[in-house]
Amino acid sequence: MKVLVINAGSSSLKYQLIDMTSEDVIAKGNCERIGIGGLITHKLADGTTIQEEADFPTHTEAFVKLVELLTTGDKAVVTDLSEIAAVGHRIVQGGKYFSESVLATDEVIDRIESISDLAPLHNPAHVQAIRACQKVFPAGTPQVVVFDTAFHQTMPPKAYMYGLPYEYYEKYQVRKYGFHGTSHRFVTARLAELIGGVEGKKVVTCHLGNGSSIAAVDNGKCVDTTMGFTPLDGLVMGTRSGAVDPSVILYIMKHENLTPDEMSNILNKQSGFLGMSGVTSDSRDLIKASEEGSERSQETIDKFRYQIRKYIGSYAAAMGGLDAVVFTGGIGENSDELRHDVCTNMEVLGIHFDDAKNVELNRHEGKISKDDSKVQVWIIPTNEELLIARDTKHIVEGMK
Amino acid sequence: MKVLVINAGSSSLKYQLIDMTSEDVIAKGNCERIGIGGLITHKLADGTTIQEEADFPTHTEAFVKLVELLTTGDKAVVTDLSEIAAVGHRIVQGGKYFSESVLATDEVIDRIESISDLAPLHNPAHVQAIRACQKVFPAGTPQVVVFDTAFHQTMPPKAYMYGLPYEYYEKYQVRKYGFHGTSHRFVTARLAELIGGVEGKKVVTCHLGNGSSIAAVDNGKCVDTTMGFTPLDGLVMGTRSGAVDPSVILYIMKHENLTPDEMSNILNKQSGFLGMSGVTSDSRDLIKASEEGSERSQETIDKFRYQIRKYIGSYAAAMGGLDAVVFTGGIGENSDELRHDVCTNMEVLGIHFDDAKNVELNRHEGKISKDDSKVQVWIIPTNEELLIARDTKHIVEGMK
Repeated sequence: MKVLVINAGSSSLKYQLIDMTSEDVIAKGNCERIGIGGLITHKLADGTTIQEEADFPTHTEAFVKLVELLTTGDKAVVTDLSEIAAVGHRIVQGGKYFSESVLATDEVIDRIESISDLAPLHNPAHVQAIRACQKVFPAGTPQVVVFDTAFHQTMPPKAYMYGLPYEYYEKYQVRKYGFHGTSHRFVTARLAELIGGVEGKKVVTCHLGNGSSIAAVDNGKCVDTTMGFTPLDGLVMGTRSGAVDPSVILYIMKHENLTPDEMSNILNKQSGFLGMSGVTSDSRDLIKASEEGSERSQETIDKFRYQIRKYIGSYAAAMGGLDAVVFTGGIGENSDELRHDVCTNMEVLGIHFDDAKNVELNRHEGKISKDDSKVQVWIIPTNEELLIARDTKHIVEGMK
Repeated sequence: MKVLVINAGSSSLKYQLIDMTSEDVIAKGNCERIGIGGLITHKLADGTTIQEEADFPTHTEAFVKLVELLTTGDKAVVTDLSEIAAVGHRIVQGGKYFSESVLATDEVIDRIESISDLAPLHNPAHVQAIRACQKVFPAGTPQVVVFDTAFHQTMPPKAYMYGLPYEYYEKYQVRKYGFHGTSHRFVTARLAELIGGVEGKKVVTCHLGNGSSIAAVDNGKCVDTTMGFTPLDGLVMGTRSGAVDPSVILYIMKHENLTPDEMSNILNKQSGFLGMSGVTSDSRDLIKASEEGSERSQETIDKFRYQIRKYIGSYAAAMGGLDAVVFTGGIGENSDELRHDVCTNMEVLGIHFDDAKNVELNRHEGKISKDDSKVQVWIIPTNEELLIARDTKHIVEGMK
């Protein structure tokens, strides 16, 4: 069975075609500049890369083009679209309605659209992509939707409710949703394979990349996470502020005479590593700048790592125990210095870190705590597309 | 030596006259309705309470009245104002300028006034009170200022910097300051007496009342705290929201068409226990409402206690260890149920809680962890006025 995985933004369409027998990627690529031009970059397993200018007025033309590259010419990887058993779509916001992946029926698509207000940059684009895909693919090709928020729907009210007047929860569904759920779920599932199950285990999963979030996973279920109503909350990120005293927002708006949209733009696009350091939003460049003497870059690095430590401790207390910590995501998998700073001097939580393994296994799956460590620490590379494909396969097989 | 302690708000003036030999309170009271009428409530150590309507156009008339009650009539406690060796003033916001208590010179008073923008409800009132006090008391009576923020000035940048564009720090001094410092310092000092010093010790102090904050105190110095730029951040409080995804603030402002001042009012006055429960801002009434079946009240209680647990875990990880946890403040000292919920199932941090002692010692100073507990848990009643008086005495003695 072959499954096509779609991650659509308002002007982009990332895709991966995955062979579900081997779980290998057959082809992947990105349609960019949708609505304002068009460019497709298409890569095959043998290393071939095809890049073409195109005309993408809408997501539909992007689908037509990617289908053309998948099915025609001497680099075709499928002879007929019917070989693609199903399409799995990443959806950022499922609100309180979706706690697991589902078939994208008309009702489901309408529901995703109805909560666009909770993710205005994402959900409308996802819906456009699903509808475009339905037009281009043979009628009856199952479309499955996989939500970033679904894994976090098991959080209890004490974790997801804010200390705000209750009417905002009723009127606007203002609560913590959490994001990166597919990644947290993927590494939890992989950890379960590696350590013989996560039943009864208390795990903290750290997805650290350009966007970062941490989740507390008790007995396989998410009980808390750092991102909130939106992906702005929690850790300081590439350009996102993370958690800030709410008064600060109001103080800056008042003194700078900013609208909510202008302030939102500052908090999402001009803050975080970029805003603090004044140098870069990229964590590798930040380390470089720090080594070249940028004190603010070093403070930014220190703050990010310090916050990760604090959330791990926080979640150990929340769950009343800690059995494992998992690092994943671009920074989590690749920065041995970060993992060192986060996990050293953490015996209070039962972590006995193995510095040699941490360096040796950098970028690879493996255990980086000492054998006598009460808490196991792991690097587990994430693969959200694969989990979307697995969910899609699972749902399609259930339809038979 | 007798010291008068002053805690002034814009329309109120709380005071305590303390005998520094015995550290007993000789008299205390509150001048209310300053600027809009006038009412003084004056209490003596023997239980006498005097309440009088008065005319308080400004803080000056309030000082005149309280001096009158202290010095004249058959209930006078001092025969002459010269018996009052000094006055100690509580100041909410010292900004980055004050890391300890100091004599209120003209320069110091101007500095406190200059940062009024950081505490618009408090600092102008404090300055009015100091100037009024100078008018009413004999020239040369030392006035000392004790800052809520001072104890937290030892925090490192990774704790006090926000993930915001650096210009806001430079332009507006936007950073975490922390509050309740006098209380956190008081209980830390008392803990040191009780356990033979806090050198090298890692302590978490929980000041829980109508306003609540938690501090991480490493080797006697504050390294982190939950309140931020203002006292709004951190834990959910009586009417304050505590920490909230910054996006939520902007979302509500946009959809409800609110100004920063209106939103600030909601977050400070209509949120927290009151907003979540829809019932009350009082923690005791919240428990009562929950027992009478209010599910939202129970969720509010759960959230508050859950957040306390998380911050304790967070600070244990921040400091890389935990030796003691202290509960203080109205709720911290008086709610055995809260302490139970916070400290039970916390063996992961080395806490072995003693439920019997917790109930037995409720409202009193004492250790409420088991003798074999790696982490000592204490109830220590706070006394901010006494610490202000001690600082004042110390500074006055240093002047000689």
